[in-house]
Amino acid sequence: MDIRITKEVENALLEDAPWGDITSKLTIDKHQSSIAHLMSKSDSVACGHEYFLSSFKLLDETISIETYIPEGNWVKSSEIVMTVKGNTRAILQAERVGLNYFCHMSGIATEVRKIATLIGSTDCKVVDTRKTLPHLRLAQKHAVEVGGGINHRMDLSSAILIKDNHICAVGNIYDAVSLAKDRSPHTMNVEVEVTDIDQARSAIDAGADILLLDNITPEQIEKIIEIVPDGIRTEASGGITPLNCKAYAETGVDTISMGYITHSVKSADFSLEFED
Amino acid sequence: MDIRITKEVENALLEDAPWGDITSKLTIDKHQSSIAHLMSKSDSVACGHEYFLSSFKLLDETISIETYIPEGNWVKSSEIVMTVKGNTRAILQAERVGLNYFCHMSGIATEVRKIATLIGSTDCKVVDTRKTLPHLRLAQKHAVEVGGGINHRMDLSSAILIKDNHICAVGNIYDAVSLAKDRSPHTMNVEVEVTDIDQARSAIDAGADILLLDNITPEQIEKIIEIVPDGIRTEASGGITPLNCKAYAETGVDTISMGYITHSVKSADFSLEFED
Amino acid sequence: MDIRITKEVENALLEDAPWGDITSKLTIDKHQSSIAHLMSKSDSVACGHEYFLSSFKLLDETISIETYIPEGNWVKSSEIVMTVKGNTRAILQAERVGLNYFCHMSGIATEVRKIATLIGSTDCKVVDTRKTLPHLRLAQKHAVEVGGGINHRMDLSSAILIKDNHICAVGNIYDAVSLAKDRSPHTMNVEVEVTDIDQARSAIDAGADILLLDNITPEQIEKIIEIVPDGIRTEASGGITPLNCKAYAETGVDTISMGYITHSVKSADFSLEFED
Amino acid sequence: MDIRITKEVENALLEDAPWGDITSKLTIDKHQSSIAHLMSKSDSVACGHEYFLSSFKLLDETISIETYIPEGNWVKSSEIVMTVKGNTRAILQAERVGLNYFCHMSGIATEVRKIATLIGSTDCKVVDTRKTLPHLRLAQKHAVEVGGGINHRMDLSSAILIKDNHICAVGNIYDAVSLAKDRSPHTMNVEVEVTDIDQARSAIDAGADILLLDNITPEQIEKIIEIVPDGIRTEASGGITPLNCKAYAETGVDTISMGYITHSVKSADFSLEFED
Amino acid sequence: MDIRITKEVENALLEDAPWGDITSKLTIDKHQSSIAHLMSKSDSVACGHEYFLSSFKLLDETISIETYIPEGNWVKSSEIVMTVKGNTRAILQAERVGLNYFCHMSGIATEVRKIATLIGSTDCKVVDTRKTLPHLRLAQKHAVEVGGGINHRMDLSSAILIKDNHICAVGNIYDAVSLAKDRSPHTMNVEVEVTDIDQARSAIDAGADILLLDNITPEQIEKIIEIVPDGIRTEASGGITPLNCKAYAETGVDTISMGYITHSVKSADFSLEFED
Amino acid sequence: MDIRITKEVENALLEDAPWGDITSKLTIDKHQSSIAHLMSKSDSVACGHEYFLSSFKLLDETISIETYIPEGNWVKSSEIVMTVKGNTRAILQAERVGLNYFCHMSGIATEVRKIATLIGSTDCKVVDTRKTLPHLRLAQKHAVEVGGGINHRMDLSSAILIKDNHICAVGNIYDAVSLAKDRSPHTMNVEVEVTDIDQARSAIDAGADILLLDNITPEQIEKIIEIVPDGIRTEASGGITPLNCKAYAETGVDTISMGYITHSVKSADFSLEFED
Repeated sequence: MDIRITKEVENALLEDAPWGDITSKLTIDKHQSSIAHLMSKSDSVACGHEYFLSSFKLLDETISIETYIPEGNWVKSSEIVMTVKGNTRAILQAERVGLNYFCHMSGIATEVRKIATLIGSTDCKVVDTRKTLPHLRLAQKHAVEVGGGINHRMDLSSAILIKDNHICAVGNIYDAVSLAKDRSPHTMNVEVEVTDIDQARSAIDAGADILLLDNITPEQIEKIIEIVPDGIRTEASGGITPLNCKAYAETGVDTISMGYITHSVKSADFSLEFED
Repeated sequence: MDIRITKEVENALLEDAPWGDITSKLTIDKHQSSIAHLMSKSDSVACGHEYFLSSFKLLDETISIETYIPEGNWVKSSEIVMTVKGNTRAILQAERVGLNYFCHMSGIATEVRKIATLIGSTDCKVVDTRKTLPHLRLAQKHAVEVGGGINHRMDLSSAILIKDNHICAVGNIYDAVSLAKDRSPHTMNVEVEVTDIDQARSAIDAGADILLLDNITPEQIEKIIEIVPDGIRTEASGGITPLNCKAYAETGVDTISMGYITHSVKSADFSLEFED
Repeated sequence: MDIRITKEVENALLEDAPWGDITSKLTIDKHQSSIAHLMSKSDSVACGHEYFLSSFKLLDETISIETYIPEGNWVKSSEIVMTVKGNTRAILQAERVGLNYFCHMSGIATEVRKIATLIGSTDCKVVDTRKTLPHLRLAQKHAVEVGGGINHRMDLSSAILIKDNHICAVGNIYDAVSLAKDRSPHTMNVEVEVTDIDQARSAIDAGADILLLDNITPEQIEKIIEIVPDGIRTEASGGITPLNCKAYAETGVDTISMGYITHSVKSADFSLEFED
Repeated sequence: MDIRITKEVENALLEDAPWGDITSKLTIDKHQSSIAHLMSKSDSVACGHEYFLSSFKLLDETISIETYIPEGNWVKSSEIVMTVKGNTRAILQAERVGLNYFCHMSGIATEVRKIATLIGSTDCKVVDTRKTLPHLRLAQKHAVEVGGGINHRMDLSSAILIKDNHICAVGNIYDAVSLAKDRSPHTMNVEVEVTDIDQARSAIDAGADILLLDNITPEQIEKIIEIVPDGIRTEASGGITPLNCKAYAETGVDTISMGYITHSVKSADFSLEFED
Repeated sequence: MDIRITKEVENALLEDAPWGDITSKLTIDKHQSSIAHLMSKSDSVACGHEYFLSSFKLLDETISIETYIPEGNWVKSSEIVMTVKGNTRAILQAERVGLNYFCHMSGIATEVRKIATLIGSTDCKVVDTRKTLPHLRLAQKHAVEVGGGINHRMDLSSAILIKDNHICAVGNIYDAVSLAKDRSPHTMNVEVEVTDIDQARSAIDAGADILLLDNITPEQIEKIIEIVPDGIRTEASGGITPLNCKAYAETGVDTISMGYITHSVKSADFSLEFED
Repeated sequence: MDIRITKEVENALLEDAPWGDITSKLTIDKHQSSIAHLMSKSDSVACGHEYFLSSFKLLDETISIETYIPEGNWVKSSEIVMTVKGNTRAILQAERVGLNYFCHMSGIATEVRKIATLIGSTDCKVVDTRKTLPHLRLAQKHAVEVGGGINHRMDLSSAILIKDNHICAVGNIYDAVSLAKDRSPHTMNVEVEVTDIDQARSAIDAGADILLLDNITPEQIEKIIEIVPDGIRTEASGGITPLNCKAYAETGVDTISMGYITHSVKSADFSLEFED
């Protein structure tokens, strides 16, 4: 099991049962064992297998889990994704943590798959943002990938992205980009947020590697892309939804980024069904 | 600052900038200072003040923050909730973590307030569940309270709730409740999930203190409540939404619990606007 | 192994050997193996099996341990509880930590068993308090259960108990109870400390679910219990000892709580005897 | 505040209130402030000031604490040791953790002071052992010092002590001591447990620096000490109690060590009294 | 103070004094205060100010520190960099940890400055590698920057670098680069290690953004650079030392990376001198 | 695996790959497996086996490792120390962390072995200091032992060493030693730094157990040793190098301590070679 996922799931288990599971302790025999099925209650992209599995294994390493539907596959309502066998108390204690991860991650993967499909006829890719929920970035970004998206920078340390507030603090876009280009590590590109064609020109002149076209209509994006030289990548963001994503993707932009796929997504519906 | 919130926000800050904020380091002077406003971009219940504030204070304790709209108040679009003053690099580094907490928590508080208002003419209370996102239970349950809801048990250790899978493992509801009543601490009640009037009768006979009426229509709930003696509390759950919550509340049930308010809620829209 | 017990025992092992066990490293061959017996040196209730076992297993997972006397059983002086086989250095390093847990937990279980036996002819139960030693609550409360007691609330978050200082801060008992009842979660009861029959009446009138009868003589408790309606539970505390516990239990009170069983208990006497 | 004490008290506070103090939240106004006195309810040596103080300061750094009786002083029943002023909720939440440390540490200091006084006419010193309660070694060993004792080794890494089980594993005492002397760091002495005069001779011949005279009568100890050359220190242990400690001290042994002062001591009685 | 540096220095302090500083406790009065100077004993680039300062401040926040020579400046032998004033025990306890950081980081900064100066007439930059000492990456990479170098990727997660072992596992360089280019995030470049001109051609054809020219002579590098199109960056590595770095830099390569500056550097010599 | 080493290597792995290894994820098939050899590229003493092994095992417990050359043995250039077999992605991710430990520890062991050999004709031992790199004390001190050295005190808590700054703060050496002797635990010796024969006399008169002869020429040390009574150990330090260590060792001093073997040592050269 992955070191970091192990630590995260351990903490989630301790958050949910700091002193153990009193209900199971009072009602279930210590040695009883059960079989339970992770069952889908709606159509979705299954995601979160390692988190689900770790929730059970970390409580009792003798629990066995069989997987029928691999991560990333569509699952229909009433289909069984995995079957869990082992100590009843441990299964009951792990159930909610395992489901909380699985339903949330599958919800994200499903939403991203929907967007990816909508723009599938173009070369444009859907990417995530740093608008993830605290402590869940690893799980959420993984779900975006499983859904068919691409991960934007994982954190503030791993890529340069000059946003409106940086530009505001520096004074103008040209200087901000120049400062970054001048001293950036050779492995890094400089991405900069622009909101109109003039800013785009300044950014290009200053040596920007990637333009983040923020809150601009598809029509305007098309015009800006016309002046963007080869080798400079483009990303559109701001108010992109399933309804308008295709229009954005068809502008020729390389990527569209959406915050809602990590901060406002509906959980997929799965439950753990015990065999009688 | 609260010990636990401090630890959670510290971890969120480290998650978002394991090696610092390279963009700000390259573009912003170390000693520059700025003023920035937490501005609402839609109507919502403001929530998450301590998390937002800690995000900045933990990066730089000399940052000062003035609060105009206290937690729990409605805020209209374009209103300023707080103003942040201090070192520009620190503000830029803390911005996203602070907003990620604030937008998510305000989203929950707003949704709960909506439900609380819809059922405001009854004595019924809205409560949350354990369907919270991993590592966010403290923040999410706090937002439910701020919204006007009541917290269900915080974790598996702090209350007894016999669910369908426990009953399945024990064999029948009467035995499950009896086992729990027999050995439960004197401070704890025994709550049990029932799905029809016969189960309710068995649960009452076995001494249950609280009935969780799961996936039952309001009409059926009314009939069950007729047979529930005084002193036994009732909770309805399963498929309750803003559309049908009033019908449930009017059955006379003491509480309605909803999972979606913590696992599938839309973030409220706030941004941090720098003064020029 | 339980996640939380594992973490606690790991920390105890690191506390006792931050840089390893230099004596064993200097005197014992790296590959030597030994057999050692956990032997009782007095009569007591054996308790702490998982802690003892984890102390050895966490240092060397190839150590094997056979258990002869299960947790909760009486063990006589000179009886062997468990036998440990494996690497000598690891056994010597784990020995003290394992014994420190086992002797302390068995000491508590033995004392609680004594009280439980003394009041065994009544329906009254012995319960613990929050007067546990820091970082040892899980282990100590477990030992109370093994001894035959019931756990009071695990922590400040999991039950409501209005004590003298709360009443002092609020001003009077009626208001304190009313405030709590008015806003308490539906899963929780309100327990309140009362010191005479008038306070008991006020508490009952305000809706208290449990009365904590603190520092009152058995005679007075009997009088108070006469006015307590069915459904309200009672707990006696304050100066209850093995000498007077039966008198308290016979008053009809539901539970008696004692702090000394966790904060002032004598360790049971066990040692680890190496086979020649 | 000391880094390690801060971490330990933080963990103790989180252990006692993982989700906050619901009773105080429901009954006490957020902005109320109180004055409370740490009052002795029996005669004892006051100990644990920094732990007590940290319990409050870590929850609310604006709480002020005045100290009247310094650590190590005798306090009589009904005397006030410290006065705490500040936010009522924070004081109520910290109270039990602060008292749990203070009562336990004062109990140890008082017991050690009693022994130190009993043997005060000799040059013998009372020392502690590694029979401390898990996670409490720092606090307990500090209390031993405050009581007038001397700390034995803090852990397995910081001194060499060859015990019966090491000798059993090596085969004989001479070889065990020789192995240790041969390879021990120049800063370390080699202490070895002996149970009769022959073992003492072998230990001395092999170069032992310190003899641990375990489970030997005072009369026998006197005879052994006669053959111990200058420069070799001696320690008596095993069954030493307040009743016989003077007899041991008068044998001329340098130190007597006692496990019960850390594993089986009675808490001192202190309470926190709120001003009306 | 930076959250991560604070955590790292706290751990370093606990590593060096798990139970406090017994020498200072035994010899120095608790209330004594001293003045001590961080003095250079050789010529070097001063580096590690925040780590040095935190070592003292974390032990006692009332210690004051005055800085005369800012980070990055050359300091001559016998010059004073900072002056520390405050509690003597705290200064003595923090001294070694503060010096261990400062001497190591200054050693790195000095070595990097030397290289940067040697290649100062070219546009080539000196960069570090992932050959840092475990747990010291943040401090070491900071020292490289202070010395005048540029940081290569901070970790395996923040940039793509296909090395010989990846190529070996994939089978050939073209496929390895193609796989990476095809699925890499839009913010990331693909860097690939090449060892001759044929590999360089394959890498360029496959779309590599950066070429790592490993273990190649300056003469060969010049030839390879001739075929490298504009926009593709180059890095030389392998056996580059102060003696040959200028020859590498003059080939026209963009950066030269050296492992020895973090894994085999000599500490700079500083001591803490107490005022009499 | 050792608890502490496990924690340290886990943290090193997370430091090097907070979000996983993107290069391997993009280029290597998830199920591919490889064989790789830890090969020496120069002559050195092999050291760090458990750290190297843990780096791989912690990422994937199914990886198998065969060891050909045990810790402490000389290895020649091009010899294979261990062979690693298993999942390719896991091997590639663990490679650098494993090598960073192994090269650094082998570098230390090699340097210490060199010194130990140089002074091998005397009874003098080489010892380390507290001048270790932060967070690496356990690994570095282990390497010193493997090289043939002896560990000085592990930390400030485990031995008493009065240095120049203590003496400066106390006022004179006699008082400093007397204070320490008077109150030191019976297991501990008092070591004190002296810089000339007069200080040595004062230290001896005050009862010092060990003299640290700091920054004195071999000739002067010989003179001081003449006046040192039997039973008092001696340590030389300050400017001792491979060039002059034999002269120091031949003075009759018991130990020579050197800081550079932990703070300024050159890494040994090893690489991980994949089989085609």
